[in-house]
Amino acid sequence: MTQHTVEKTSVTLLGLGAMGTALARAWLAAGHPLTVWNRTPARAAVLAAEGAGVADSAVEAVAANTLIVACLLDDASVEEALAGTDLAGKDLVNLTTSTPAQARARAEWARERGARYLDGGIMAVPQMIGVPEAGGYAFYSGSPELFEQHQETLGVPAGTTYVGKDAGFAALHDVALLSAMYGMFAGAAHAFALIRKEDIDPTSLAPRLADWLVAMAPAVHQTADQLRSGDYTQGVTSNLAMQVAGTPTFLSTAEQQGVSTELLRPYFELMRRRLAEGSGEEDLTGVIDLLVH
Amino acid sequence: MTQHTVEKTSVTLLGLGAMGTALARAWLAAGHPLTVWNRTPARAAVLAAEGAGVADSAVEAVAANTLIVACLLDDASVEEALAGTDLAGKDLVNLTTSTPAQARARAEWARERGARYLDGGIMAVPQMIGVPEAGGYAFYSGSPELFEQHQETLGVPAGTTYVGKDAGFAALHDVALLSAMYGMFAGAAHAFALIRKEDIDPTSLAPRLADWLVAMAPAVHQTADQLRSGDYTQGVTSNLAMQVAGTPTFLSTAEQQGVSTELLRPYFELMRRRLAEGSGEEDLTGVIDLLVH
Repeated sequence: MTQHTVEKTSVTLLGLGAMGTALARAWLAAGHPLTVWNRTPARAAVLAAEGAGVADSAVEAVAANTLIVACLLDDASVEEALAGTDLAGKDLVNLTTSTPAQARARAEWARERGARYLDGGIMAVPQMIGVPEAGGYAFYSGSPELFEQHQETLGVPAGTTYVGKDAGFAALHDVALLSAMYGMFAGAAHAFALIRKEDIDPTSLAPRLADWLVAMAPAVHQTADQLRSGDYTQGVTSNLAMQVAGTPTFLSTAEQQGVSTELLRPYFELMRRRLAEGSGEEDLTGVIDLLVH
Repeated sequence: MTQHTVEKTSVTLLGLGAMGTALARAWLAAGHPLTVWNRTPARAAVLAAEGAGVADSAVEAVAANTLIVACLLDDASVEEALAGTDLAGKDLVNLTTSTPAQARARAEWARERGARYLDGGIMAVPQMIGVPEAGGYAFYSGSPELFEQHQETLGVPAGTTYVGKDAGFAALHDVALLSAMYGMFAGAAHAFALIRKEDIDPTSLAPRLADWLVAMAPAVHQTADQLRSGDYTQGVTSNLAMQVAGTPTFLSTAEQQGVSTELLRPYFELMRRRLAEGSGEEDLTGVIDLLVH
């Protein structure tokens, strides 16, 4: 509604998959001059009609602006797209899904080419981009100067959370949270499987399941406190011995319901191993140490 | 504060483990006459000092009141404790952790002895009992008449949620939710393991992890809608093909961080199997069907 007279930072965006396209639209909607490039040009044409400048090549796209955002398929696509571009003096923000090691290597690679580097991991689906109330955000790590200078622009499509100078930390946070989500989804899949052949409407289980998971999620705070203090008995409500004693009920129920135990067993097995080490008075936190070599 | 003049239902409670003791205290605090019995008498003595009547035997405890609540170690303990008691005309509420099959068999067993039967699964730790704002509750299934008659008394220690006449349904709901919780805990354990050797404070990851899990938990509503409609492509934001394409990043990151992939692989393997069946456009819901024999 208000007419902003401050000039918005110009952005070059490489990659127009579902996420890249959503990012592009958010910046265009906020009035940021935008230059886009995509390996296959058809997707760029759509955005041209919405006000984006379309570069014929990545070289041209990189030359157009200082702030270069890459949102490509994978790290190899970043290497391929940027090969031959002049990155000297550029601010490269890499939102391409990467491992921490790839992000660190890409940061070094960018430094060698004279660019500042920031790595990002987006915690949102494309539908949440540009919709602040959807709560999407991205982790960023790498150059603190780059982050500080461009935080406002980066904050247009989704919230920004800076997690450290180590360029690998954004990817590490991203992977940690998504891995935990898959664990939760695996647990929910098992729960739905248990009622699959019963006369129980899955939409009546869902709100109970969602409320329960939401109520139990804050348990991670106690886990973190225990990891920090090293005292895994701190604040225990149901100790490992009691919880292991309960596992046969879960496994038997699965078997009775004709449901595979493949998603339950690995965690229960780690609980059992930790108990066998004499840690029955502890919380479940010791399992984490068994995972780390 | 207010002096209630309405007579409170008398309760017999069998079993004074941590949960039974918490239940006992909640009923005593609410002014319900309470008779307790425990296999080892020491725990009953503590409650006697707090106003409970202590029965010398389960036979005597069962004879004392109509409403009999059992909160014992396991189903075998229920069989053992109630052997020789006269259950004719009694209302037996069994809060002992059981499988659905055990609950159904125990319901039949109680019916044969002339008792009405209600099975319960408590979704709370003992610390949450008698603390309404803690949000604890119990699933109940079995005799609807028993539930209706005693709902108020049963609601004193924790909320009550009736899930059907099938005596096995309370246990099934209980096991489903707890199984899902272990999945979430497994995912969180993997997340914490990933940062274990890095200079990242687990207490800084915890709020991000908790918020993320809370934000993602409502995905179970879409899963339920898809299970109900049979259309697993309904409302998909990130399809199975895309999600499977992302899994190598999670596995590689774990390997780079020296973290076992044992908690991640089983779910990813099911995703891959479902994709191989040609379901790339679907959501993750098809995995559930692979779990059910």
